[in-house]
Amino acid sequence: MPELRRDPIVGRWIIIATERARRPSDLVRPPEPARPGLCPFDPGQEDKTPREVYVSGRAPSAPPNSPGWKVRVVPNRYPALKIEGDLDREPVGIYDRMNGIGAHEVIIETPDHSKDLGQLGDHEVTEVLFAFKARILDLRNDQRFRYILLFKNYGPAAGATLEHAHSQLIALPVVPGQVTAELDSARRHYENRERCIFCDVVLQERKDRVRLVHENEEFVVFAPWASKSPFETWIVPKRHESNFEAEPKERLAYCAQALRTTLAKLGQALGNPAYNFIVHTNPLRDPSSPSYHWHIEVMPALTNVAGFEWGSGFYINPVPPEEAAEFLRTVAP
Amino acid sequence: MPELRRDPIVGRWIIIATERARRPSDLVRPPEPARPGLCPFDPGQEDKTPREVYVSGRAPSAPPNSPGWKVRVVPNRYPALKIEGDLDREPVGIYDRMNGIGAHEVIIETPDHSKDLGQLGDHEVTEVLFAFKARILDLRNDQRFRYILLFKNYGPAAGATLEHAHSQLIALPVVPGQVTAELDSARRHYENRERCIFCDVVLQERKDRVRLVHENEEFVVFAPWASKSPFETWIVPKRHESNFEAEPKERLAYCAQALRTTLAKLGQALGNPAYNFIVHTNPLRDPSSPSYHWHIEVMPALTNVAGFEWGSGFYINPVPPEEAAEFLRTVAP
Repeated sequence: MPELRRDPIVGRWIIIATERARRPSDLVRPPEPARPGLCPFDPGQEDKTPREVYVSGRAPSAPPNSPGWKVRVVPNRYPALKIEGDLDREPVGIYDRMNGIGAHEVIIETPDHSKDLGQLGDHEVTEVLFAFKARILDLRNDQRFRYILLFKNYGPAAGATLEHAHSQLIALPVVPGQVTAELDSARRHYENRERCIFCDVVLQERKDRVRLVHENEEFVVFAPWASKSPFETWIVPKRHESNFEAEPKERLAYCAQALRTTLAKLGQALGNPAYNFIVHTNPLRDPSSPSYHWHIEVMPALTNVAGFEWGSGFYINPVPPEEAAEFLRTVAP
Repeated sequence: MPELRRDPIVGRWIIIATERARRPSDLVRPPEPARPGLCPFDPGQEDKTPREVYVSGRAPSAPPNSPGWKVRVVPNRYPALKIEGDLDREPVGIYDRMNGIGAHEVIIETPDHSKDLGQLGDHEVTEVLFAFKARILDLRNDQRFRYILLFKNYGPAAGATLEHAHSQLIALPVVPGQVTAELDSARRHYENRERCIFCDVVLQERKDRVRLVHENEEFVVFAPWASKSPFETWIVPKRHESNFEAEPKERLAYCAQALRTTLAKLGQALGNPAYNFIVHTNPLRDPSSPSYHWHIEVMPALTNVAGFEWGSGFYINPVPPEEAAEFLRTVAP
């Protein structure tokens, strides 16, 4: 059973995913590329994955777990958390632990093994975001869960272990420490000024324009003022909304256009880099907030720059966001 | 001039190191190994580095910047911060910036190009820690500085760009966000219980012993309860002390023994892994604290495990610290 453990000093919860445990020698081996025709995420290989929990695009008359889908969501075969059981919170000496209860799902973004998200059409990316929304709406009914992390690892340098385009969802019984820090800071700003800090940032970026990468009717894409790493890029809705899952499909279509354009530009500018993106959204038990503002943070995983920063929380970025944004504005997606 | 920028949401300061700026294409290139005899950190190559600010082991009669040293500290040739100038704090729209004033130095740990810290003798590692202390004591006289980060990147995967054994020092005009978080949490624990949380952890680890890796008279080495990544290892003084630079040389000798043993064990267990270590110590303007406790955190940089964690602050660790510790206890250094 995986386990959630609380850091006694800073209060952060981490997962000890014992069921994924590998020998020390396995930790230094890069992931294996799928042999053609044997990728478990390819159409026709549906029996190679756990049974789907969401699907789109397949004819209603077709059986589940058969080909013909556009987006397919399945439980992770090697989950970091288990869906069944009770939390059983308990002390261990001075420490705190609970069972690693949660959901860990894989969103297979396209049946096409050869394409990443940035190479799909806007309509296809909208289907992916709609799958994100549908899964949050389903999982939030489970009262054990407090937060849903939606993220994508693309490329081995960003932690991906399969090359077929996919993102991941982890439903957690705790709110991650960094999310709490972001929520608390945003709340303090709101208490002082009665304005959302993210709305302020959107206004500033649309006025300055030097860090702006892309804009459509509903979303703005920019390199943030205090970018932690080169080419960090944020996708933020112009209209205030704290919860990703509250967005109607029409606005998710604009988000998809912004996300697809961002990934295509990063791919073009940096030569198909590994990257991570994370959907930052409000915790499940806080239905709506005037101080928090959901958004997506995209971070290319460029080697040489992730050193001690990972452990220290202190970042040195050699590329000013203004230069990154100018470069991204000029490349054709 | 490098620049310090404050994240408007979480308040974290980051460095935009413009003078280190590289073209996007440079970001994906691995570091070049030094050609034999051309390493700027080798004895005889002292004129290839900026002039030394500290040296040990050289005969007093010998000229500065000549061979014969054991440890040598020089300013970084490509500094993330500049030593000269004023901070010039100012707002930029809703944002905050200041000039990137600070010190960035390199501690050359040994004249021997072929050895890392874990392969040196205890006495040589003591000399390295004594150099750390001497540099903090010197730099804390500069009233612009609030924190000194001491860290080591070993191996390209951990961000090292030169193979000759070295660590780095960055003196900052701000306290890094993660340090503030750690200090605040420790202070809250002290206010509630009138005990240092780190002292509590040391007692618990010495009692449980399952996460213990090594112990000597003055220091304890263990895999922390909520390890963020496989084989994360902490080196903590048994006796309460908030400031690294307050330790007398006799106690630094025990620390050196613990650090050298830890690095040798990790090297043996994981096959010479890339790693980072960071000295966590009290800010410069807080001379001594009953609630904070300096220590060293060592993190092997194993590929595959650093994915979205870096950006999300949420960690999934496939190796329980109890297993890592057991493995490290059994390997001969």
